Amino acid sequence: MTDEKHSFPLRPGSSIGILGSGQLARMLATAAARLGLRCKIYADAPGPAFDVAAAVTVGAYDAWDKLTAFAGSVSVVTYEFENVADATAQHLAKLLPVRPGPKALAVAQDRLVEKTFLSDLGIAIAPFTPIASVDDLKAARPTGQNRAILKTRRLGYDGKGQVPVDAKTDPQHACAEIGHAPAVLEQRLTFQREVSVLICRSADGSDVIYDIPDNTHRDGILRRSTVPSALPDAVVKEAHAIARRIATTLNYVGLLAVELFDLGNALPADQRLVVNEIAPRVHNSGHWTLDACVVSQFENHMRAVAGWPLGSAIRHSDAVMENLIGADALAWRDLAAETGCCLHLYGKHEARAGRKMGHVTRLTPRR
Amino acid sequence: MTDEKHSFPLRPGSSIGILGSGQLARMLATAAARLGLRCKIYADAPGPAFDVAAAVTVGAYDAWDKLTAFAGSVSVVTYEFENVADATAQHLAKLLPVRPGPKALAVAQDRLVEKTFLSDLGIAIAPFTPIASVDDLKAARPTGQNRAILKTRRLGYDGKGQVPVDAKTDPQHACAEIGHAPAVLEQRLTFQREVSVLICRSADGSDVIYDIPDNTHRDGILRRSTVPSALPDAVVKEAHAIARRIATTLNYVGLLAVELFDLGNALPADQRLVVNEIAPRVHNSGHWTLDACVVSQFENHMRAVAGWPLGSAIRHSDAVMENLIGADALAWRDLAAETGCCLHLYGKHEARAGRKMGHVTRLTPRR
Repeated sequence: MTDEKHSFPLRPGSSIGILGSGQLARMLATAAARLGLRCKIYADAPGPAFDVAAAVTVGAYDAWDKLTAFAGSVSVVTYEFENVADATAQHLAKLLPVRPGPKALAVAQDRLVEKTFLSDLGIAIAPFTPIASVDDLKAARPTGQNRAILKTRRLGYDGKGQVPVDAKTDPQHACAEIGHAPAVLEQRLTFQREVSVLICRSADGSDVIYDIPDNTHRDGILRRSTVPSALPDAVVKEAHAIARRIATTLNYVGLLAVELFDLGNALPADQRLVVNEIAPRVHNSGHWTLDACVVSQFENHMRAVAGWPLGSAIRHSDAVMENLIGADALAWRDLAAETGCCLHLYGKHEARAGRKMGHVTRLTPRR
Repeated sequence: MTDEKHSFPLRPGSSIGILGSGQLARMLATAAARLGLRCKIYADAPGPAFDVAAAVTVGAYDAWDKLTAFAGSVSVVTYEFENVADATAQHLAKLLPVRPGPKALAVAQDRLVEKTFLSDLGIAIAPFTPIASVDDLKAARPTGQNRAILKTRRLGYDGKGQVPVDAKTDPQHACAEIGHAPAVLEQRLTFQREVSVLICRSADGSDVIYDIPDNTHRDGILRRSTVPSALPDAVVKEAHAIARRIATTLNYVGLLAVELFDLGNALPADQRLVVNEIAPRVHNSGHWTLDACVVSQFENHMRAVAGWPLGSAIRHSDAVMENLIGADALAWRDLAAETGCCLHLYGKHEARAGRKMGHVTRLTPRR
């Protein structure tokens, strides 16, 4: 991989591979196109990204020959989802650079590994217990008024693979609900707000961090991200330090999202933040950067992947991003007509309940 | 054309055809993709737009069967260049809506028709004479210190098909330089600045107008557009009125660019502006809208074409757009690293002299 095709920075006109065909891949591909970089998509099914890609391949993530051919057609590979199988990442990493690297995937796709990794770094997280059996859950089940969440170790997203657990929960039933998959039981914390740090890191160790959004979830799905956050400056500094420590330890290349709970202003600044989870990819809570920043999270991710200098994460406007979920997107005509509203639709054909169909970012001048 | 496929507003997921595969088509396609609209490109050769399109067709603009098939695959057709042949536009217009309409093309692609159209509307333009022969030019050649420009009636752009003419010019030589094509001789005016109005008009007659940029040309090619312009408010109002009169008369749908000379502040506001030319398409002097406005010229053009409500043309930042011409683009690495700089590269393979390879928009907070 010392040939010109794989030497960084990639020249304009180079091809970048993206695993996954969803809306994140779609927004990555159009962001890369701004820079004259060509994107080729590999996915197990067609999706929104297919409409804006220079080339597409439909193949299983363990179709090794197809993956090898795909790798031969691009200079570097990235991905839009953290559940890329270890074997897939390893297969590709033997052929060309994979960014972010397999280590970030391994940490982020298993909640137990992730929590252990964060704990080992001295980063505060919610108390947790590994759950391998109904007996484990019986023993770990909270008492009194305490509440917890049972989460599968793997393949959970947008609230899927999660079950609330309290003193009255039937352990057998809760484990059955997640298909008896290996899990962790997480203590549910009382927090003042949810925020996320969107950090983009280069292979040379430089980074940019976007302004921190306040995030609102409903039914386990992100609904709204607001910048600026109400988080005090001293806590923002703590959040940056946490994100930077994670990115540096992972020798991370690309956009990393770190979701945090702010436990509130009764605590000193350095004890307020608890990491909820990390995502080794562009993140829904950073979609507002498309419209409110000089260079978006999508473009900066692709810059990092291509070995380019990172661009300005400067925010020129205040912004509120709202997801259009399921039938929300039917209001597209009104949203299109709204002053100051940036409308994004992902081109999905069917507005199923709970499906992210698009988002809007409402811009206002910086206060 | 009253079936659902061609009824406006087009639903998200609908397909829009674009004639031309250059950078304007590329930016139109990615802008439409934001809205969940799919773009299919038809062009006589592959180009930058092919990398971001849902489907592409290579065919001559008089390959009627191919054009018919293309028309059958989309709900409406637009174009990135004003030199779409009349026969092509007419062929398509029989099959589906073409926006902007054939009338705008007919006016904009022939300088004599355009000047006559503007004159008839009572809009000030530089004095001109049709030139059909060397004798015509001999008779019309300026005297004394006066200067003029001989321009072909058709197919000129970026300073091509233009020859400066003064009292000492050899008419035979000047006509030979433009291949003895039918032409107009335009008196060269002394102006204070060049500006352009970017107006986007809906089929329902509503419109939005972007802030007017000051434009700088060199060698007949746009180099820089700056917003806000130094144009006084009273003159801005005149410019808006002129652009609106043109768009309304043409029953225009989409983005129309009107290039104007400002003759300067020695004149009253209503006598300062002279129209240079119009372009029935998105325009280079509006590229800054991608980064400095809520909704760009590209997206608003596609909204108009799709029959959608127009979006906010609100400018959130001051901006200076500079074209990257030929070897300028070799500085991409430095430009990518520059704070506040939005870099756009068009993915063209060869940096020929005079070729538009990309542009940068430098953003600063609104003064």
